[in-house]
Amino acid sequence: MISVAIMGHGTVGSGVAEILTTHKQKLFKAVGEELYVKHILDLREFPDSPLADRFTKNFEDIVNDIEVRVVVEVMGGTNPAYDFVKRCLQAGKSVVTSNKELVAKHGAELLAVAKENNANFLFEASVGGGIPIIRPLSQCLVANEVDEIAGILNGTTNFIFGKMINDNMDFSDALKLAQDLGYAERNPEADIEGHDACRKICILASLAFGKHIYPDNVYTKGISEITLDDVKYADSLNYVIKLIGDVKKTEDGKLDILVAPMLLSKDCILSDINDVFNGILVKGDCTGDVMFYGKGAGKLPTASAVVADVVDCAKHLKARKRIFWTDSDGSQVASYKDSKTAMYIRVAGKGEMAQSLFPDSEIMKADGNTVLMTQEYKFGEIEEKIAKLNENGEKVLSAIRIGNL
Amino acid sequence: MISVAIMGHGTVGSGVAEILTTHKQKLFKAVGEELYVKHILDLREFPDSPLADRFTKNFEDIVNDIEVRVVVEVMGGTNPAYDFVKRCLQAGKSVVTSNKELVAKHGAELLAVAKENNANFLFEASVGGGIPIIRPLSQCLVANEVDEIAGILNGTTNFIFGKMINDNMDFSDALKLAQDLGYAERNPEADIEGHDACRKICILASLAFGKHIYPDNVYTKGISEITLDDVKYADSLNYVIKLIGDVKKTEDGKLDILVAPMLLSKDCILSDINDVFNGILVKGDCTGDVMFYGKGAGKLPTASAVVADVVDCAKHLKARKRIFWTDSDGSQVASYKDSKTAMYIRVAGKGEMAQSLFPDSEIMKADGNTVLMTQEYKFGEIEEKIAKLNENGEKVLSAIRIGNL
Repeated sequence: MISVAIMGHGTVGSGVAEILTTHKQKLFKAVGEELYVKHILDLREFPDSPLADRFTKNFEDIVNDIEVRVVVEVMGGTNPAYDFVKRCLQAGKSVVTSNKELVAKHGAELLAVAKENNANFLFEASVGGGIPIIRPLSQCLVANEVDEIAGILNGTTNFIFGKMINDNMDFSDALKLAQDLGYAERNPEADIEGHDACRKICILASLAFGKHIYPDNVYTKGISEITLDDVKYADSLNYVIKLIGDVKKTEDGKLDILVAPMLLSKDCILSDINDVFNGILVKGDCTGDVMFYGKGAGKLPTASAVVADVVDCAKHLKARKRIFWTDSDGSQVASYKDSKTAMYIRVAGKGEMAQSLFPDSEIMKADGNTVLMTQEYKFGEIEEKIAKLNENGEKVLSAIRIGNL
Repeated sequence: MISVAIMGHGTVGSGVAEILTTHKQKLFKAVGEELYVKHILDLREFPDSPLADRFTKNFEDIVNDIEVRVVVEVMGGTNPAYDFVKRCLQAGKSVVTSNKELVAKHGAELLAVAKENNANFLFEASVGGGIPIIRPLSQCLVANEVDEIAGILNGTTNFIFGKMINDNMDFSDALKLAQDLGYAERNPEADIEGHDACRKICILASLAFGKHIYPDNVYTKGISEITLDDVKYADSLNYVIKLIGDVKKTEDGKLDILVAPMLLSKDCILSDINDVFNGILVKGDCTGDVMFYGKGAGKLPTASAVVADVVDCAKHLKARKRIFWTDSDGSQVASYKDSKTAMYIRVAGKGEMAQSLFPDSEIMKADGNTVLMTQEYKFGEIEEKIAKLNENGEKVLSAIRIGNL
């Protein structure tokens, strides 16, 4: 019997407790021993839970219990999650988390603490919910140099785009619907402004390229400026707009990493990812394009990924998994100004100056405005050209990257 | 240093040798030791290979070499692959194969031999080429009951459908193009008649449900009867035709498994899998729909999956992976006649009798023919109704399942 503690009994935590109970037989077969939920940490009371006798409000009950070998952290946020996780690892317990903020902020340190204490720190559920991605990236694709990872990493924003495309809703109505359906938080900033997607691409990039990338070092643009008009013009040009997290190697060995809305050609497999689904495209030098698709959030999908990690920890109590990266000072991240991209630019009026600043663009007239599909430029140059246009009265109504995936 | 032998130096085998050479550093880091190619078995001569000194024509050089811990089998076919693999496992060596015919025919026995000898028998590359699917299914989805697996498992047939849909080619021209491009064999039967897809769905089903399913027990229908007309009518009804391998649990605990062309709604994510790509959809009770996408064949994609398994074997020389299933007599497979499906049926003329035999169908007139999109029936009933139509002069021009994925 292997004793497990769960810290947090919210959506994901209660799902973890549920799966450990309902899938007991299958998990027993996989581990070769029973997984026993010994403690559940939560400040609230759950008198009606079938596991009511396991609840505690005192973290010390968990960290000091030498029988507990695997601790699940599903509290969210970094305080007190960071301290709790670190102390569990220091006590030689393996820790499984779904907490992307924690991993994106403290992953390198916690992986190092785990290593020092011969424990495992696993976080499959932190990216893509129930979609297997962390393990395939570290195991199945081990015989590849990863060239690029690009993903639709946030289901809420993808849902909003879907409503704009299919149901002609404008951004604020689609956001309100997402909130009413429980997909978006009352304060939707982390989703809408791209912070959630940023944490996830940071985790994937850290794993694939071996050095920690902190969200603060990553150019992040959200979707709140995307208008229904742009969605429609994109559609007529055979593109869809998606919020993409992207990281790729540059020629000088740095990493070009960003989160931004992008126009994707309808031929791109990521353009077919609809509703609240996530899709993560990995380009390997040997495999070519591989994509992982599924629900990126939700109680049971996320909890099932957590439990798969618990099984892995339980089977490797004395061995370490090779999921690891080292800390870094961020110097491997290229300036966003050097990142090259083609652009969708919509300007008021005939766009004569725009056409001269972005020669050889594809041009489309759009209800008194002009849409340019430009050639590739460094983003720094694009910013300068856009500033020049605005200064000279040729107002830039929208400017969106064109993805090249 | 861990010595590896490679049996077969064809497309995949030479890819394995190439990756083990070109990705030496990355693999060293992953394993913690060097992977050294000690022997390559092939009856042909490769004097110009950088590994020319490692070639042998004698299998005994491999099986009797106690330094060899991992053997890669990429010869294809079952003779002599089956004997060679079995003897290697009996000698306590772990074996990695990309040979779907071998796994589909002898998987249960070879897994048992591996277990007896405390060795591993891994075959990630046997399904989906470079797409990680065997490991995610056995590891990441361990906290799920798998309800259904459905996939586009054969790139060649998918390429042919793509040419029919997009380039208006008829079946035989598209097949010829596939052959000219090297996607299809000169004898294309294994692809076209669905045998290749059948082997793959058998492997996935055996793994997901724990008992060996032999291809001989699986209803398998190929794509050679699909006409350009049907592709067009399907398109106009908002469907695409794909060759699908599908397995799902029935209410009485049996497995409903088959390979057949199906109409898929354009809303289904598998309908977006184009060209030679594969897509494998796994429906878990907790994760919901998860899909894995990538190139299902090709030298380096397949070889990279083989090498990932070699790494896994090298890291688990004394431990066993939990990939396992037991033998079976096929009694868990439900009769294809009991499998329920809605049908696309095209009959010559007005189809009055068809409409009375398949009441409540959606009806479309089609160039003097009639297309019915029927309700769900057991396939046995459908066969009887179709026989009755043909006997009564209302000729059935085509009958294709409608997928419900």
